[in-house]
Amino acid sequence: MAREGDEEDVLHTRPLLETHNQVLLRRSASNATSQVAIVGSNVCPIESLDYELIEYDFFKQDWRSRDQSQIFQYISMKWMLCFLIGIFVGLVGFFNNLAVENVAGIKFVITSYMMLEHRYTMAFLVFMVCNFALILFSSIITTFLAPAAAGSGIPEVKAYLNGVDAPGILSKRTLFVKIIGSITAVSSSLNVGKAGPMVHTGACIAALIGQGGSKKYGLTCRWLRFFKNDRDRRDLITCGSAAGIAAAFRAPVGGVLFAFEEMASWSRGALLWRTFFTTAVVAIVLRALIDVCTRGECGLFGKGGLIMFDVTSENVAYHLSDVPAVLALGVIGGILGSFYNFLLQKVLRIYNLINEKGHAYKILLACSISIFTSCCLFLLPWLASCRPCPADASEECPTIGRSGNYKKFQCPPGHYNDLASLFFNTNDDAIRNLFSKNTDTEFHHMSILIFFVTCYFLGILSYGVVVPSGLFVPVIVTGAGYGRFVGMLMKSHSNLNLGLFAVLGSASLLGGSMRMTVSLCVILLELTNNLLLLPLMMLVLLVSKTVADTFNGNIYDLIMKLKGFPYLETHAEPYMRQLTVSDVVTGPLQVLNGIEKVSNIVHVLETTGHHGFPVLDKPPISDFSLLYGLILRSHLIVLLKKKAFLPTPVPTGIDAAKQFSADDFAKRGSGNSDKIEDIELTEEDMEMFVDLHPFTNASPYTVVETMSLAKALILFREVGLRHLLVVPKGPSISPVVGILTRHDFMPEHILGLHPSLVRSRWKRLRFQSCSVINIFRASQTNL
Amino acid sequence: MAREGDEEDVLHTRPLLETHNQVLLRRSASNATSQVAIVGSNVCPIESLDYELIEYDFFKQDWRSRDQSQIFQYISMKWMLCFLIGIFVGLVGFFNNLAVENVAGIKFVITSYMMLEHRYTMAFLVFMVCNFALILFSSIITTFLAPAAAGSGIPEVKAYLNGVDAPGILSKRTLFVKIIGSITAVSSSLNVGKAGPMVHTGACIAALIGQGGSKKYGLTCRWLRFFKNDRDRRDLITCGSAAGIAAAFRAPVGGVLFAFEEMASWSRGALLWRTFFTTAVVAIVLRALIDVCTRGECGLFGKGGLIMFDVTSENVAYHLSDVPAVLALGVIGGILGSFYNFLLQKVLRIYNLINEKGHAYKILLACSISIFTSCCLFLLPWLASCRPCPADASEECPTIGRSGNYKKFQCPPGHYNDLASLFFNTNDDAIRNLFSKNTDTEFHHMSILIFFVTCYFLGILSYGVVVPSGLFVPVIVTGAGYGRFVGMLMKSHSNLNLGLFAVLGSASLLGGSMRMTVSLCVILLELTNNLLLLPLMMLVLLVSKTVADTFNGNIYDLIMKLKGFPYLETHAEPYMRQLTVSDVVTGPLQVLNGIEKVSNIVHVLETTGHHGFPVLDKPPISDFSLLYGLILRSHLIVLLKKKAFLPTPVPTGIDAAKQFSADDFAKRGSGNSDKIEDIELTEEDMEMFVDLHPFTNASPYTVVETMSLAKALILFREVGLRHLLVVPKGPSISPVVGILTRHDFMPEHILGLHPSLVRSRWKRLRFQSCSVINIFRASQTNL
Repeated sequence: MAREGDEEDVLHTRPLLETHNQVLLRRSASNATSQVAIVGSNVCPIESLDYELIEYDFFKQDWRSRDQSQIFQYISMKWMLCFLIGIFVGLVGFFNNLAVENVAGIKFVITSYMMLEHRYTMAFLVFMVCNFALILFSSIITTFLAPAAAGSGIPEVKAYLNGVDAPGILSKRTLFVKIIGSITAVSSSLNVGKAGPMVHTGACIAALIGQGGSKKYGLTCRWLRFFKNDRDRRDLITCGSAAGIAAAFRAPVGGVLFAFEEMASWSRGALLWRTFFTTAVVAIVLRALIDVCTRGECGLFGKGGLIMFDVTSENVAYHLSDVPAVLALGVIGGILGSFYNFLLQKVLRIYNLINEKGHAYKILLACSISIFTSCCLFLLPWLASCRPCPADASEECPTIGRSGNYKKFQCPPGHYNDLASLFFNTNDDAIRNLFSKNTDTEFHHMSILIFFVTCYFLGILSYGVVVPSGLFVPVIVTGAGYGRFVGMLMKSHSNLNLGLFAVLGSASLLGGSMRMTVSLCVILLELTNNLLLLPLMMLVLLVSKTVADTFNGNIYDLIMKLKGFPYLETHAEPYMRQLTVSDVVTGPLQVLNGIEKVSNIVHVLETTGHHGFPVLDKPPISDFSLLYGLILRSHLIVLLKKKAFLPTPVPTGIDAAKQFSADDFAKRGSGNSDKIEDIELTEEDMEMFVDLHPFTNASPYTVVETMSLAKALILFREVGLRHLLVVPKGPSISPVVGILTRHDFMPEHILGLHPSLVRSRWKRLRFQSCSVINIFRASQTNL
Repeated sequence: MAREGDEEDVLHTRPLLETHNQVLLRRSASNATSQVAIVGSNVCPIESLDYELIEYDFFKQDWRSRDQSQIFQYISMKWMLCFLIGIFVGLVGFFNNLAVENVAGIKFVITSYMMLEHRYTMAFLVFMVCNFALILFSSIITTFLAPAAAGSGIPEVKAYLNGVDAPGILSKRTLFVKIIGSITAVSSSLNVGKAGPMVHTGACIAALIGQGGSKKYGLTCRWLRFFKNDRDRRDLITCGSAAGIAAAFRAPVGGVLFAFEEMASWSRGALLWRTFFTTAVVAIVLRALIDVCTRGECGLFGKGGLIMFDVTSENVAYHLSDVPAVLALGVIGGILGSFYNFLLQKVLRIYNLINEKGHAYKILLACSISIFTSCCLFLLPWLASCRPCPADASEECPTIGRSGNYKKFQCPPGHYNDLASLFFNTNDDAIRNLFSKNTDTEFHHMSILIFFVTCYFLGILSYGVVVPSGLFVPVIVTGAGYGRFVGMLMKSHSNLNLGLFAVLGSASLLGGSMRMTVSLCVILLELTNNLLLLPLMMLVLLVSKTVADTFNGNIYDLIMKLKGFPYLETHAEPYMRQLTVSDVVTGPLQVLNGIEKVSNIVHVLETTGHHGFPVLDKPPISDFSLLYGLILRSHLIVLLKKKAFLPTPVPTGIDAAKQFSADDFAKRGSGNSDKIEDIELTEEDMEMFVDLHPFTNASPYTVVETMSLAKALILFREVGLRHLLVVPKGPSISPVVGILTRHDFMPEHILGLHPSLVRSRWKRLRFQSCSVINIFRASQTNL
């Protein structure tokens, strides 16, 4: 295995690679869990992120240990970056809406005018071809340019913030495709949302701004060097995802809460404040731009776009007698929401099978869903009968152009088609129509039912296709239909108006599907601008979440599991308490000496894929064999690249580090790291030595091998580690027994090593934080 | 030191206490930081809380490892407890308001009628005597019954949630005094608030409900046994404090955010949800009760009380031109807020000197502040000239009775005294008057200035006296005055109405003093019920917090420091990176053997005050001297109390544990724990042995002695530890070097051990999370 050394005089320090460097573990099975994931229907390798503060003599990563001018640079840059993120996300969010409103608007205007001339078939064809072309474009750019841009992006960003780095999810290309693809997909009347893609867009913008353009073109700023690490990137991406929600819904506080409730795995007070600042910038940018638009300079953007449904009624009166209706709404909403998740998951599996067959199949799938959607949207309104315009309509009736509550469609003058007002509109306008007050008689209950059922299934069918697609808006629109329908049924039992029922219906379906509480509540309040709804909203969200949690998990968690991200949960599973760390640690373990021969390092790097190696000091350097610390693969590669070699194995101390600058060890954007294969070393180099001490993290976290696995997980998760060293309990040959990584804590891995646990009652009794038995999960673990 | 054993045959297992049990540390200085704090102006000892999951064979603390019926009990009980907390806090919050409105109302009605009869001196005397009597009562019950109830209580609860247990802060007595004392203090027109006391009240209610009544009277429920630990208590108290804010301001979402932004040191998604549920219950309870009151069955409660200032104007129009005015408001508000904190801190120190002199002095201080306040409130309005009632006044003018915008005071009929409308009212009414729209000409700018300056200083002078007193409402009222005054000055530069200026002024002063962002924003939005204010509110809060952070810290942190709570910050100070764990660990360390002689245990417990002891296995039980785990003092005392002794030192295994039930080890409410002095042991008992293994936490967290102190702090803080074991790097006589506790991470302790660091630049460069140099702190560290 090792290259043989041939000089006798270095023999006493040359490690006996065969015997010592591979510390033998009791169990030498290797970690069998998948280290790849399906991101954007492409299989890609997964790495963990380094959130641990690395402390070695040469370079203290933490900004707190820098001098004053550097601290000033760091802090002012960080605020500046948050400001820029806010500006850009605000601009992109506005541009998104503007584009969607105009593209979809032109489509609806053209078809509406054709309808007016009774050229129905022609209108249908134009409508369908427009949608088809838009989806074709969107799916082609997604498939060929950035497959990682498909889907909502929220699961990917959530996994990233948990420490899972799937390459490509935060690249320039993904950003571009996400923006353009989302605009075209939403404009094509596919039942997909723009909120999820906005979150991903926000995260991409944050990551790219933090990276500061590309090094290749000399665009990077020197001050940005402080942000070339995963911790600061995580902070920025948290801000970016909050800004995304803020821009999508014009809900700055909701955005902050969403980022902290759903997205972030680690949160701190300072970060909360920074996120708040970012979303405040977004809110101000949006307000300024909307001011421009109210002057009528944004084409068809007018009233539509940037959803904000003002349901302020002078008098939101509700009484104890309304509570049963609201409870019923919550319970059914919870069941529908969890069933939504269940169906979506099934559909995604089928779609994955189709998508795996090749690019053509992916695009074909997207296009056929588009055609199906077009048919539904255009043909179903014919089922509804025309209704006469109300005498006291607050707005034009029937409407012919763009938005509006009363769509003419095929109806004679003075009449409107209530189903077309919902279907033959953008989702935003449909939501606005459903949420609006004083429209209790506008819709027939059959129309609402048809709309609800169609949206429910179209939403499920549309999500998995290879275009950027969010889940928020489809769920809101479906929920609004559902709420109005229930409201109509409950008419006799409640005094609430149907617009409020629609709002509460959206809340219940969102609660049943997304399972957030505070953030959904605030987002919906900001959307509807009515704080008096608060107690009812809270009630509905609590009920629907509780009900839905009895059946399955949060939709984003389900998708994350389907994609295979090794997401670390906060809590340990019960069976982890039965195990100790040494029960799961797998080998063989590769260790390095404090002063190591180059050939050995190269060999270790070439033969293993590990990202961290324990560094040992052995006699004669120390009295005993001691654990000095942990060195990262990326840092070893930098050392090899710079050729900071020594002819003889003597400690060099800090001087050797003089030829390095901190920038050399900066972590680059994901997918950009150097590989060992790219480094060329001569035979002479191979025989030389490297003093690893100055570059080794001398304070790695350790656990004793008898530590309970559950408690090791708590340490690993709370501190945000990538590697956790396992040390022996008593005197031992080697001062380190193994390394735990994220994959070692995955239930699949643990249950693979200890199949008996699968049958034990501990396994079946897996409770979620929501406290109810989770039956579905067991079937998903091997996905 | 040790009692001599006299049997030869047990000598080989009898520990040589003198040589081994006290592992000698390199440094044997003891921890010099104060282990006591001033809580409610009484010095009391401080303990840490046990948040670590204790895993030993006998008893797994985590609910996830219990069987199904127990899990069901646990979960249903936890939700039930949250429900009860919500109900009780809602009721208490309502009762509080009802009582204040009625007591203060009667006082104002009586004096107003006297004024109407021109009996001014008499009115003043009645007013003063009422206030005096109320304060006297409040200060007497606070001083003699529960000194811990003095002040706001937020710092105490915040410290508790960080793991600092100051006895008495969550007792039944404190709860009682807090409620009654707060009602009387607020009714007495002292410039104190009710929000802080409500938070403390909520926390007390949560702690007491979790304890389930007293064991003495058999009131405790068997199902509550799962909650007899610090982790569950922490969760409940977080819910309780959120419920407190929700009840005080009728702001359920704001309450949740307050609990998570300001109070909680550890937060989890599940807890967020539970807190949300609790505040939803509070909101519903309050709504139901207010419905009762609108029927006029609550005495003088009518419009006043339960602050909710509806500033909804049809048209909150603001433009770019308003931004400079808002920025100015924010900047000055930040300066005023930090100056408020600075002055408050100085005043508190002076008050502490007075309060230390004895009970009489405390009460005297409270009474003199009350007299001073009465003089200000009654005499200052005479400075204002009477203003004629506006012709189009929306309400009665002048008002004589209780609340109202136009107080008659000494004015002739048809006139009102604008200053009296502010001073001669409860704080809630003053805020409502200042926030109200369409009242731009109601107040003279000199009146507003006098009001603002008086409130500013009265707020500072009133806080430290020995009555329950909050800071929120005084700061809001002062800020409202300040905002209106700035609005009047800026009249020509801005189109915002003065009511909005008042709201923004409150936000800026709150931001400058409390330094919260998201939670303040949401609380203020819920108070004013106007979401359109959001962007301006965010801007003002950001600016004022940023400005204020350059000067000093959050007011609650300053008070916590003054009180001497060892609050653990999330981040490490820069100089901690220069130190290793072994630089701060202090001795002597007491260790126990796995099978230990009773007399040794008693000796160790009697001679030390430590709360955790490492348990070692030594030959012949094991091959080497090994660290088995950590045992808590409270568990040792239970073992001694139950006399689970062995005649000979042989391992007993799990059988010995049969005589214990998990309840025996349940942690009781603070201050209720058994003491070693209370346990009576015979001479025979003393010579027997205890097998500690089944009761020892076998998975304690450890760090190597060369670990950087900063990283050890991160582990300690993130995982929420009470004891962190330090193990030697290489082979050593003892497998454990020391124990780190909360006090070892306190800057005072570290700087005491390493005075050179005080002078180093690291010390001076202490940055807060807010990123700006903190100059003031250095002077406070030795307090």
